[in-house]
Amino acid sequence: MKPYVVGIDIGGTNTVFGIVDARGVVIASSSIKTLKHADFNDYLEDLYEGVMRLLVAHDAVDKIHGIGIGAPNANYYTGMVERLANIPWPTPLPLAKMVSDKFGIPVAITNDANAAAIGEMTYGAARGMKNFIMITLGTGVGSGIVINGQLVYGHDGFAGELGHFIVKRNNGRLCGCGRTGCLEAYCSATGVARTAREFLEIRTEPSLLRNIPIDAITSKDVYDAAVNGDKIAKEIFEYTGNLLGEAFADFVTFSSPEAIILFGGLSKSGDLLLRPLRESMERNMMYMFKDKVKVILSELKEADAAVLGASALGWEAKPDNAAAPAPMV
Amino acid sequence: MKPYVVGIDIGGTNTVFGIVDARGVVIASSSIKTLKHADFNDYLEDLYEGVMRLLVAHDAVDKIHGIGIGAPNANYYTGMVERLANIPWPTPLPLAKMVSDKFGIPVAITNDANAAAIGEMTYGAARGMKNFIMITLGTGVGSGIVINGQLVYGHDGFAGELGHFIVKRNNGRLCGCGRTGCLEAYCSATGVARTAREFLEIRTEPSLLRNIPIDAITSKDVYDAAVNGDKIAKEIFEYTGNLLGEAFADFVTFSSPEAIILFGGLSKSGDLLLRPLRESMERNMMYMFKDKVKVILSELKEADAAVLGASALGWEAKPDNAAAPAPMV
Repeated sequence: MKPYVVGIDIGGTNTVFGIVDARGVVIASSSIKTLKHADFNDYLEDLYEGVMRLLVAHDAVDKIHGIGIGAPNANYYTGMVERLANIPWPTPLPLAKMVSDKFGIPVAITNDANAAAIGEMTYGAARGMKNFIMITLGTGVGSGIVINGQLVYGHDGFAGELGHFIVKRNNGRLCGCGRTGCLEAYCSATGVARTAREFLEIRTEPSLLRNIPIDAITSKDVYDAAVNGDKIAKEIFEYTGNLLGEAFADFVTFSSPEAIILFGGLSKSGDLLLRPLRESMERNMMYMFKDKVKVILSELKEADAAVLGASALGWEAKPDNAAAPAPMV
Repeated sequence: MKPYVVGIDIGGTNTVFGIVDARGVVIASSSIKTLKHADFNDYLEDLYEGVMRLLVAHDAVDKIHGIGIGAPNANYYTGMVERLANIPWPTPLPLAKMVSDKFGIPVAITNDANAAAIGEMTYGAARGMKNFIMITLGTGVGSGIVINGQLVYGHDGFAGELGHFIVKRNNGRLCGCGRTGCLEAYCSATGVARTAREFLEIRTEPSLLRNIPIDAITSKDVYDAAVNGDKIAKEIFEYTGNLLGEAFADFVTFSSPEAIILFGGLSKSGDLLLRPLRESMERNMMYMFKDKVKVILSELKEADAAVLGASALGWEAKPDNAAAPAPMV
């Protein structure tokens, strides 16, 4: 077996990629701007150059077992990206086949939260766990579900959209998916900022957050204010943690996981978020699951996590689509 | 491999058991009263006699590969029944070991809804499906979840408690589990009867249901009234179907199943329930899952279903606990 895999994480701003060995050591990594080119073929050319430069520099050109890619709405079964919210490439896009044809290396793709779950299982906090749920609290809320040691893709490859679990059935906030009341509209970084605006408008108490133009408030501002003892900011975290805990208690009735693992910017809020989250989860938990389910933080270094998660999928890539290697430009 | 299995379904009233062949034909079945004896050992003696009588009559004494049992709160991993709501046996009860020791045959146990899912996958509407959710709409609401062709037991053996998914976050009805707002408190047969009482008390319109003492109304009464065109009764089914559809749309974000299969008394209400259920599910569905997930009815004959489902588990039973056969009494 070839000793390395390549992990590629396609985000709305940056595409990060790296060479990873079987122990999960990131040998080298680099990145390109995802949106530098509007045309996908130009982007692919850029990506190819960037990855090949790394491979040549580390004497790894013929040592890549597979390429794993994490990308929004990427489908593991079909190798297609079905829909892109913030990237102008035409969809459905046969991402796995196009990258595989370009590199002459087998490619497997999945969405970013699933990649994070695979990374956590292979190299992080979920090592040895057969049943857990990964929740990514970033700009949106993503999820990757592992049952019996396997990533859950479902019938169509799109399972694990727990960010779009309805937490407010009535008068819920509009979500990017077009519905109202989704977990993501409340408990993502942008959801926390929306809560801040809502609280500041409804209430009259003083708050450090009132020094910031209301439309410019970010979840980081709320965190900073809470750390400085701001009452409204702390209540925003209580509110967010409470909703997450309610949702997690419902998730547990589904798959009874050993742990729910948090990843992403908001998860770094520490006990400001974790204490109300755990309290709410236990308060809402069905008796048979009480005091059993751990809520823990990712153990992957954030700088490496996206690449590591995607790369772990590279070990699963099968050479179905692999064509002859394209010449290096 | 021995040609038969025995399926045993332990319900709150009756324990039904039967001999089943590899094609899912129930060769013979019988039943005993679950509560005839308060002591579990006396019950076990009764069960042993009843099953052995069937085996002798059908020349099957040495032809049983395994025994599968469906029982409330039965844990597949541990072989224990952890808690019993309506049966006075002491818990935790080592059901698998005690039955296996008594019969000298390997035993596997699970809860009744999981057994139904296994039966449906082996012999019913879910043949060939790798990803589906079984929902049993009986006195309570149970569920069995299949992902990648495997029953989901979760970390502790108790996964798949979707009847205790919270559908009313505020002012929800008290559920038997001690919490409020569970799906089961609304969409079980008893939940439908509670809805009837609620509607009749709040509203003033005439209804056929007003001819029945309010505390005696059953879901069957509501069905009969609806079939006879009763407006309130039909609205009770609309209300029930709507809640189920909302919950199902959330379930789909978890495991993206090919189908949700309904079993149990209430599922026989036909389009009175299915039309509002399907409409609500699609109305609440995230875009990527719209018009993909079938809601269908069990294809197992009700008289055989419990035994068939439990029996299918008998093929999985492993001889860990099997002791020498006890002598026939």
